[in-house]
Amino acid sequence: MVQGRVYNFSAGPSMLPLPALERAAGELTNYRGTGMSVMEMSHRSKVYQEIFDSTKRALREVLSVPESHEILFMQGGATGQFAAVPLNLIGTTGSADYVVTGNFSGLAAKEARKYGEVHIAASSEDRRHTYIPGQKELKLSPDASYLHYCANNTIYGTEWHYVPVSKAPLVADFSSSILSHPIDVAKYGLIYAGVQKNMAPAGMAVVIIDRALAGHELPITPVIMSYKTMIDKESMYNTPPTYNIYMLGLVLEWVKEHGGVEGMEELRRQRAGMLYDFLDGSRFFHGIAERDSRSMMNVTFRTGDPDLDSKFVKEAAEAGFLNLAGHRVAGGMRASIYNAMPLEGVRALVEFMKDFELKNK
Amino acid sequence: MVQGRVYNFSAGPSMLPLPALERAAGELTNYRGTGMSVMEMSHRSKVYQEIFDSTKRALREVLSVPESHEILFMQGGATGQFAAVPLNLIGTTGSADYVVTGNFSGLAAKEARKYGEVHIAASSEDRRHTYIPGQKELKLSPDASYLHYCANNTIYGTEWHYVPVSKAPLVADFSSSILSHPIDVAKYGLIYAGVQKNMAPAGMAVVIIDRALAGHELPITPVIMSYKTMIDKESMYNTPPTYNIYMLGLVLEWVKEHGGVEGMEELRRQRAGMLYDFLDGSRFFHGIAERDSRSMMNVTFRTGDPDLDSKFVKEAAEAGFLNLAGHRVAGGMRASIYNAMPLEGVRALVEFMKDFELKNK
Repeated sequence: MVQGRVYNFSAGPSMLPLPALERAAGELTNYRGTGMSVMEMSHRSKVYQEIFDSTKRALREVLSVPESHEILFMQGGATGQFAAVPLNLIGTTGSADYVVTGNFSGLAAKEARKYGEVHIAASSEDRRHTYIPGQKELKLSPDASYLHYCANNTIYGTEWHYVPVSKAPLVADFSSSILSHPIDVAKYGLIYAGVQKNMAPAGMAVVIIDRALAGHELPITPVIMSYKTMIDKESMYNTPPTYNIYMLGLVLEWVKEHGGVEGMEELRRQRAGMLYDFLDGSRFFHGIAERDSRSMMNVTFRTGDPDLDSKFVKEAAEAGFLNLAGHRVAGGMRASIYNAMPLEGVRALVEFMKDFELKNK
Repeated sequence: MVQGRVYNFSAGPSMLPLPALERAAGELTNYRGTGMSVMEMSHRSKVYQEIFDSTKRALREVLSVPESHEILFMQGGATGQFAAVPLNLIGTTGSADYVVTGNFSGLAAKEARKYGEVHIAASSEDRRHTYIPGQKELKLSPDASYLHYCANNTIYGTEWHYVPVSKAPLVADFSSSILSHPIDVAKYGLIYAGVQKNMAPAGMAVVIIDRALAGHELPITPVIMSYKTMIDKESMYNTPPTYNIYMLGLVLEWVKEHGGVEGMEELRRQRAGMLYDFLDGSRFFHGIAERDSRSMMNVTFRTGDPDLDSKFVKEAAEAGFLNLAGHRVAGGMRASIYNAMPLEGVRALVEFMKDFELKNK
């Protein structure tokens, strides 16, 4: 552990790379000789425009975003996109397909019903959202404007390990796994992600959209949710969340220094591997998600005894492993191990779990 | 000038109190022994909840918000509220009154037309938005759900120096003057303000709403814009912009240490007084707004010669007075002098203007 910092397994907001935080602290009152904080800069100023442009450029580079797609910085987080996606896209046919594999994809489908007809292409509710349906289980409708799914389910600890095939444009919520592995962006009509897990402080969503999909919003679309307006105004129709964008730039520098999304993927394999290997060998702790659907970002597990689960969460917190309680709808424990969680944090957690098992089995 | 910092007259984002920035810098990587940055904290954690609660409490105290009114922290800035206000409030009668006294109140009225009938109660367009209409000039309609106005016009440099009387609930955009003077909140059904001028880094709006007005939103309201949901979930239906809220808390501490909104009002009188007194005595520079409608936050002026205006803006920047160009729709110059602009910044600017006048008249 560095400088009295803790291992924070929060599902989001969550750990950010320490070098990015240190850089931000160092230039907080005076950004690189400009005499002002980034927080104080006019978003129309030359110095801020450079921060904005270099962040956008770095994101395009790191995620290999093709020229067909525009990158937008929008307010309202992923929940804002639950409305923005149908408001902008459902109008072409009046209906859309949704796959429900957890809490947030369910909320996205619920929000979309305000703006058109929603067809549930598949749901994992039958096995308490412990798995991801296969391609053959998806019942796609012929007239969907798009197919929406959530690539990683933060609460239940499952993750899509394939890209679904659909005639309609693919729309995916990557809030809890973006920047943790390469994505073939060209396969998607739209990708969105709340930034507060792998990217930046809470208060923003990154949207990556095929420009061809914009321009069909319903007349009732709030202007801050119009992709067409945001594309035309390069995310500056109104004042953008300037500091979040700056922080995203610092995080992207760190990602690039650590091998880009390929480097992040290797790290997540190691982090998740350590935890799942231990869970598979333990007779005391049990993984909750089905094996082939396991998330490499949010590892859910339990002892089987709610009292022991509580004891574990409490003692872990005392030992410096914070926020390990599972979400109340899922129960048990959850270790969220995003990009900024150091390998030694997971290693130390596994040692702590071994020790807890010995003392309590 | 402190530590190589400049005088930043930007209309927003704009200067923040240096002590707040220094505090933020000092605890950025490790907040008060918690081992993590505020940016990394789960919004559901006890430590973050305390930051959130104390910020809300401080705002209630500083603005003397009555118990009838709820304070909300929402994403999307004031532009988001241009949609949220009608989405939530226009449904009761289907129409609303808007006073158009500048760019942003015009955009608010335009956005409201998506959701109901908009009646323009008055417009200052006839004299290029250089004045605020008087109470007798307001043509209020009998069936308005609310009367909307913008208390301070950032671009044109005008400000309402009275609270309009209306049978319908008053709704006001205080983005560029909130926290700069006492407000009789009980007179309003709803007050909103983008935070990026007097409050915090860009990316949030503060909404203060009479609870009795909530619960009548149109069915098409995006959930992140529903006042009812935000009241019920205490601004945490989804992840709030956690760091902006923390920064607002630090700014509010500074406001309290400087006499609260009464202290801020005295300071703004001194700042604006210095500039307007100089403008009134100058035959070279001319104030743009009509005298009884002048803003104490955004002082607009010009020489009458666009080339001299450009020269002034350029030379001022070289001397450390930044962002003095007027908005392109208004022309001339604009000095935005929000709470965090030190008196010596305005004093030094006046000296610079005197000097420029001598050299160029």
